[in-house]
Amino acid sequence: MPTPVVLDCDPGHDDAIAILLAAGSPEIDLRAITTVAANQTLDKVTSNARRICSAAGISVPIARGSAQPLVRPLYVAEDIHGESGMDGPAFGALSVGVVQEHAIDVMHAHMPATLVATGALTNVALYLRRYGPSAVREIVLMGGSTERGNTTPYAEFNIYVDPEAAQIVFTSGVPITMIGLNVTHQALVTPEILAQLNALGSLGRICGELMTFFATTYREVFGFAAPPLHDPVAVARVIDPSLVTCVEAFVGIETTGTFTRGATVVDLHGRLGREPNALVAVGLDVDRFFGLVIDAVRRLT
Amino acid sequence: MPTPVVLDCDPGHDDAIAILLAAGSPEIDLRAITTVAANQTLDKVTSNARRICSAAGISVPIARGSAQPLVRPLYVAEDIHGESGMDGPAFGALSVGVVQEHAIDVMHAHMPATLVATGALTNVALYLRRYGPSAVREIVLMGGSTERGNTTPYAEFNIYVDPEAAQIVFTSGVPITMIGLNVTHQALVTPEILAQLNALGSLGRICGELMTFFATTYREVFGFAAPPLHDPVAVARVIDPSLVTCVEAFVGIETTGTFTRGATVVDLHGRLGREPNALVAVGLDVDRFFGLVIDAVRRLT
Amino acid sequence: MPTPVVLDCDPGHDDAIAILLAAGSPEIDLRAITTVAANQTLDKVTSNARRICSAAGISVPIARGSAQPLVRPLYVAEDIHGESGMDGPAFGALSVGVVQEHAIDVMHAHMPATLVATGALTNVALYLRRYGPSAVREIVLMGGSTERGNTTPYAEFNIYVDPEAAQIVFTSGVPITMIGLNVTHQALVTPEILAQLNALGSLGRICGELMTFFATTYREVFGFAAPPLHDPVAVARVIDPSLVTCVEAFVGIETTGTFTRGATVVDLHGRLGREPNALVAVGLDVDRFFGLVIDAVRRLT
Amino acid sequence: MPTPVVLDCDPGHDDAIAILLAAGSPEIDLRAITTVAANQTLDKVTSNARRICSAAGISVPIARGSAQPLVRPLYVAEDIHGESGMDGPAFGALSVGVVQEHAIDVMHAHMPATLVATGALTNVALYLRRYGPSAVREIVLMGGSTERGNTTPYAEFNIYVDPEAAQIVFTSGVPITMIGLNVTHQALVTPEILAQLNALGSLGRICGELMTFFATTYREVFGFAAPPLHDPVAVARVIDPSLVTCVEAFVGIETTGTFTRGATVVDLHGRLGREPNALVAVGLDVDRFFGLVIDAVRRLT
Ligand SMILES: [Ca+2]
Ligand SMILES: [Ca+2]
Ligand SMILES: [Ca+2]
Ligand SMILES: [Ca+2]
Repeated sequence: MPTPVVLDCDPGHDDAIAILLAAGSPEIDLRAITTVAANQTLDKVTSNARRICSAAGISVPIARGSAQPLVRPLYVAEDIHGESGMDGPAFGALSVGVVQEHAIDVMHAHMPATLVATGALTNVALYLRRYGPSAVREIVLMGGSTERGNTTPYAEFNIYVDPEAAQIVFTSGVPITMIGLNVTHQALVTPEILAQLNALGSLGRICGELMTFFATTYREVFGFAAPPLHDPVAVARVIDPSLVTCVEAFVGIETTGTFTRGATVVDLHGRLGREPNALVAVGLDVDRFFGLVIDAVRRLT
Repeated sequence: MPTPVVLDCDPGHDDAIAILLAAGSPEIDLRAITTVAANQTLDKVTSNARRICSAAGISVPIARGSAQPLVRPLYVAEDIHGESGMDGPAFGALSVGVVQEHAIDVMHAHMPATLVATGALTNVALYLRRYGPSAVREIVLMGGSTERGNTTPYAEFNIYVDPEAAQIVFTSGVPITMIGLNVTHQALVTPEILAQLNALGSLGRICGELMTFFATTYREVFGFAAPPLHDPVAVARVIDPSLVTCVEAFVGIETTGTFTRGATVVDLHGRLGREPNALVAVGLDVDRFFGLVIDAVRRLT
Repeated sequence: MPTPVVLDCDPGHDDAIAILLAAGSPEIDLRAITTVAANQTLDKVTSNARRICSAAGISVPIARGSAQPLVRPLYVAEDIHGESGMDGPAFGALSVGVVQEHAIDVMHAHMPATLVATGALTNVALYLRRYGPSAVREIVLMGGSTERGNTTPYAEFNIYVDPEAAQIVFTSGVPITMIGLNVTHQALVTPEILAQLNALGSLGRICGELMTFFATTYREVFGFAAPPLHDPVAVARVIDPSLVTCVEAFVGIETTGTFTRGATVVDLHGRLGREPNALVAVGLDVDRFFGLVIDAVRRLT
Repeated sequence: MPTPVVLDCDPGHDDAIAILLAAGSPEIDLRAITTVAANQTLDKVTSNARRICSAAGISVPIARGSAQPLVRPLYVAEDIHGESGMDGPAFGALSVGVVQEHAIDVMHAHMPATLVATGALTNVALYLRRYGPSAVREIVLMGGSTERGNTTPYAEFNIYVDPEAAQIVFTSGVPITMIGLNVTHQALVTPEILAQLNALGSLGRICGELMTFFATTYREVFGFAAPPLHDPVAVARVIDPSLVTCVEAFVGIETTGTFTRGATVVDLHGRLGREPNALVAVGLDVDRFFGLVIDAVRRLT
């Protein structure tokens, strides 16, 4: 039986591929997509969710969530994802709308389900505070890092944007799996992978164009030879947990530092004497991961 | 026309009097009471709201809200309000129930209204993040201080319990009136006031018993000669704004200090160069204030 | 026998009067003056120490100390003390020089003595770290407040400028007496006091001109009707402890807040459960205080 | 001409080897050794400096410095370095004493020189605040990391122990070279290296015993297969800069985080928009490094 999933995201190039992976994999029953401001404003990322769903013929409910982080002002990743939040391809007419209910109410209507979160954790935190931690089975999230970050030296973007929300999630007692940069930086879209995507027809070419744009910003900003496919790794973990090696660890969310706000402090060596509160990804079967992505896009074509 | 009010509270001795003042004043149309964990747990303060409403024959909807602060663990004021959160009187059978909807949804159902908040600001912050700042007309809150605090040297209890919620409220752009300890410490229930309450029949005697208990803890913990009636001052400000003198000021909420978390940093002399974000109470007409309280209890008797 | 004193200061209008009070009081054996950047740069405050000593015929060693706070950049009080740090009077030729040794070495050479500190605590902290806490008998300092501050809503200038130094001092175990704004704001130089100073000859007129300038900035910045004579209160406490009522309390120095750095968190009601680490001034005999000041200036005339 | 060096350290197993490397290399003129509390108390690390110098016949002045960090309490690394701070070998009688002057005065007496710091930066910071940043030519320090830490997930021990001192050093304007865990974790004392040390006579065997103890704690605490020789890499950088590849970067010292105090936030990708303030080691020629160490011990034998 497929795993029921609500996907909370901020498309975003890699979020778009995460949507395709979730919708195109028989192991997942994608029940709803909810949007959160992070890579770009709420209007833009919601529009992007509709664009990729329209292009792929995905018809699950899409619901708008938080337009800003819980406590602090919004910080967007225009340098990485462009002005639209999903620059690159030309998308056609929108065939998919948004529902009227708020993201957290839509999440609740589709429970029990696994919550996969690939943006800032604002909606997830609001959901936990409004409906309580028992109202979700588990949370698998892309965010954080056991090593360096990407937005500041020690903070990854999704956590940096809303550290207080991350604090709520990581202290909630809900089973958490954290997929951080330390593994997603292994999921590089090489020219070979790009060629495979481009060979999959019009949807594959849209994926190719997304990745081509993403490759440019990752090369310019970080000097990467190929762009990393962060968010789909969280979806892949739900499809097949054996793809992603995890360890139990305490993860502290830094909400107060001068230079470190948003850091995920993963206590791999038990130095802090705290109980583990998450499964933290430390390894990825890269080939099988990309196999899942290619298969999912092919199924949707 | 009376001012429509939703009262968000954590009864609480002084919250109980605030409820009576709101329900017993013709200038206010009390539409709903919502509860929030702070003085005691959510179960206890909700039960206390039902107890005082049952005793006074108040039949507005009562809705449960947040069982814990937004980001941090709950800290209760058992040393001040006792084990029940409203120790002192013996209350009779409960004649008032709670509605099933969550506090923030009940708030929304009764808008447009003035939101009077006399507990931690968790519900108010959740409301603002779920429904947006345009979904409330104004917020009048008891909390903070322009001088010293009461829970730590510079933090007042309501703000100390949930500083991140306070940060959300004070940066929301909604018109805020802050009634802090600097004025509520003038609203002292002297023996004369106590005698007037006790003379008002059974409801007055309940008020008297509440104040007698409150007097004991305030004397023991803070050395006060008479207990201060904090929360009703916020209600009084709505009944008659001229009772409370206010100044416009920037109020920064300290969310990160070692010894000062929860301080309301009120920039009375414009030292910080920030735009005002609140009306801050600096004076109280004490006699007229207690006149309103006595009249309200008399009307409910 | 007079109390041996080293006076560490940042003249400063009120520091100047503190120097005169120390040098002109038979109860004090003023052994050295050391300077620290705070009200103005080290060069300026050292020059000001030489100016007032030259004007008053005071010939104790003057030694330069720290040109900047321990950890953070220098913040000066030009809005209060003017461009020179001691604007107002025209001073004559300098008859007093500075010694070559560093302030902390000069302090040490004159121990055992009471260290009176009326500027940022940088030199005092360096002294404690270089020579150890047993190398000073006691420290009487002007700084902090039990109530509001003057540089930010909760931070007094001397502590605000170098909170880490203050943290070192207050956790050193050395007997500390803290004279804060809550008492120094009672030491107001009224027109009557000003007239008495002006009647004391040329040195008195210099004092009068200092206070006239100080009155202007205090009126403009804080709306005070008369300027407060902060620093001399610390000297007065050494001359006659009975002038200043003190209580034992824990004083936490806020070094990490967003809006509160430099606050002295004085736990008057024992809310924090910490051991007292200072005597904190809570009352002042204003008339006898000004009597001491007038007498000292007269003696130096 | 050899480079004049003052070595400020907290021996410490790897500090001991750093002393030998400095004293046994003709490219360095080791002028003095100063000690600082960190790996163990000041008494213990000073005793350890005397032990290794006595064993190796090194007769430079040894001076005691700070017994505790600048602002916070001392935290020692007994779990890594044992009760003595240099557990393992049996040392013979002490033939070397300590001078009476304080470390910072001894540093100053031997300037101009390169300051190599391999412990907490307390002495170095005090030196900069007492004598000014122009009183040292350059500082080469072992501390920090561009990646994970060793004391907490993001903080390396030397910086963790005294972050405020590190803040002073990194903002001083003095040329700084930072040798962090990211390179010192490459300097692993493999069984082959250990065998080479043990073959060098009695001093070599002392080195071997030091490394054997160090290997045990690094295996137990961190799961390392071989122990890293942190501190000597800083000395090696002075002997031959080409051994250590460095990049210019801004390094922020985290002094205020909840989980991250003491992190060195190295902005390798220029995300923070700050001017570089240090040369940061990113690569090490491991073979040539160990060649220097072996040669130095041989020379001292
Ligand atoms: Ca995303
Ligand atoms: Ca209340
Ligand atoms: Ca001063
Ligand atoms: Ca060391």
